[in-house]
Amino acid sequence: MEESFSPEGFQVKPIGWIRSDFQQKFGTPRQATLAANSRAHVELAPEYKGRGIFQGLESFSHVWVVSYMHLSQFKKKTVKVRPPRLGGAKVGVMGSRSPDRPNNIGLSLSRIVSCEGDDLRLAEIDLVDGTPILDLKPYLSQADRPEVFSDGWTAKVPPRDRVCEFSEKAAQDLEELASQRKVQEPTRLRALIEEMIRLDPRAPAYLDRKDAQFAVWVAGLNVRFRFHDERFTVTDVEPI
Amino acid sequence: MEESFSPEGFQVKPIGWIRSDFQQKFGTPRQATLAANSRAHVELAPEYKGRGIFQGLESFSHVWVVSYMHLSQFKKKTVKVRPPRLGGAKVGVMGSRSPDRPNNIGLSLSRIVSCEGDDLRLAEIDLVDGTPILDLKPYLSQADRPEVFSDGWTAKVPPRDRVCEFSEKAAQDLEELASQRKVQEPTRLRALIEEMIRLDPRAPAYLDRKDAQFAVWVAGLNVRFRFHDERFTVTDVEPI
Repeated sequence: MEESFSPEGFQVKPIGWIRSDFQQKFGTPRQATLAANSRAHVELAPEYKGRGIFQGLESFSHVWVVSYMHLSQFKKKTVKVRPPRLGGAKVGVMGSRSPDRPNNIGLSLSRIVSCEGDDLRLAEIDLVDGTPILDLKPYLSQADRPEVFSDGWTAKVPPRDRVCEFSEKAAQDLEELASQRKVQEPTRLRALIEEMIRLDPRAPAYLDRKDAQFAVWVAGLNVRFRFHDERFTVTDVEPI
Repeated sequence: MEESFSPEGFQVKPIGWIRSDFQQKFGTPRQATLAANSRAHVELAPEYKGRGIFQGLESFSHVWVVSYMHLSQFKKKTVKVRPPRLGGAKVGVMGSRSPDRPNNIGLSLSRIVSCEGDDLRLAEIDLVDGTPILDLKPYLSQADRPEVFSDGWTAKVPPRDRVCEFSEKAAQDLEELASQRKVQEPTRLRALIEEMIRLDPRAPAYLDRKDAQFAVWVAGLNVRFRFHDERFTVTDVEPI
């Protein structure tokens, strides 16, 4: 009991790292289930390799990924956050899923694509490449699925969902890169890029601009896109 | 990216502590949803008091409690565990919800009973009194509730569920303590004790004993119980 009051806290160490297509916080989906076309694998820390730590996980469909969001910032003096969907209004950080929170701990529910030995492949990932993983826990409906529930304030605000289309030039760019083998899985990658942008990654300061240009890095590509006429267009795609 | 490979890991600090009726690992339910009659509150760390950190949480029905299970033990050399329901068979620790795991991070889905200012009251708790809390996140069906899922190997093994009854003496003990005001909410407490024991907290070494006696501490009480004729009987209840 005394130990639990340890004032300096506890040391946690990554069991591994996420390898994903997301290279920046900007554009990375805010919830894993929103990113059906994302793919990732887990790179185990050396001390856990080859010892069957994932054994049994292959029988489940989903896994909780408990991560240390190393790019997030939390200032002790700001315990309130402004969720994008609330358009400026504040809630307590514990009443939100904001990535900027005490201890930077992330919780993502991902789909298990395959799991063989140490090779764990996931879909529905919202973590930047290189994010340290602290734990993985199988999804268990008995424990994780209440029969009756309420989504609180989030049920009252519409999710951000825009139209995003590739310009002819951007589609050509991607095709050329694929034919040069500089891009793998171009169809999935295009769907992933559309998914990322459709969720509207713009910072609040840009929401009122009628015509604005942006760029996001994903899977080794620099993806440029515009917001105009209430929709997004991907204008061109090039290797970083 | 370099920072994310920090070999010494990361420091996490409790945002607060759980105050529950569970005083030992023995008897504490292994999943929060199994303990409908448990109640707990969250004691905020001094630096977060009075600042609205829970604001917004009152609108949700459920909350993820991310805890540091300070009583758990994990030995680096044992990455396999023997879940009680598998009767001796091993799985990888990441393929299980065992509390003994790297980083000792717990994930419990609890029901929000009430939330006013800093006063957060929870039901469906599986955490020992004094467990440090690292984070709280509202349950969000959009992110946390896959439409199609599989419970993996747990779907193939029956959950432990026994009969547990109070003896006449134990029921009298509890009534007397209630009339002396040494026990609050005796009806709920009796239901909680039955719930804890029904889930069969016996260690594997005791499973084959035909008649065995046990004791568990809960809510300031020493509760003695027997296993006999394939069922549990609570024999007597006294203050610790």
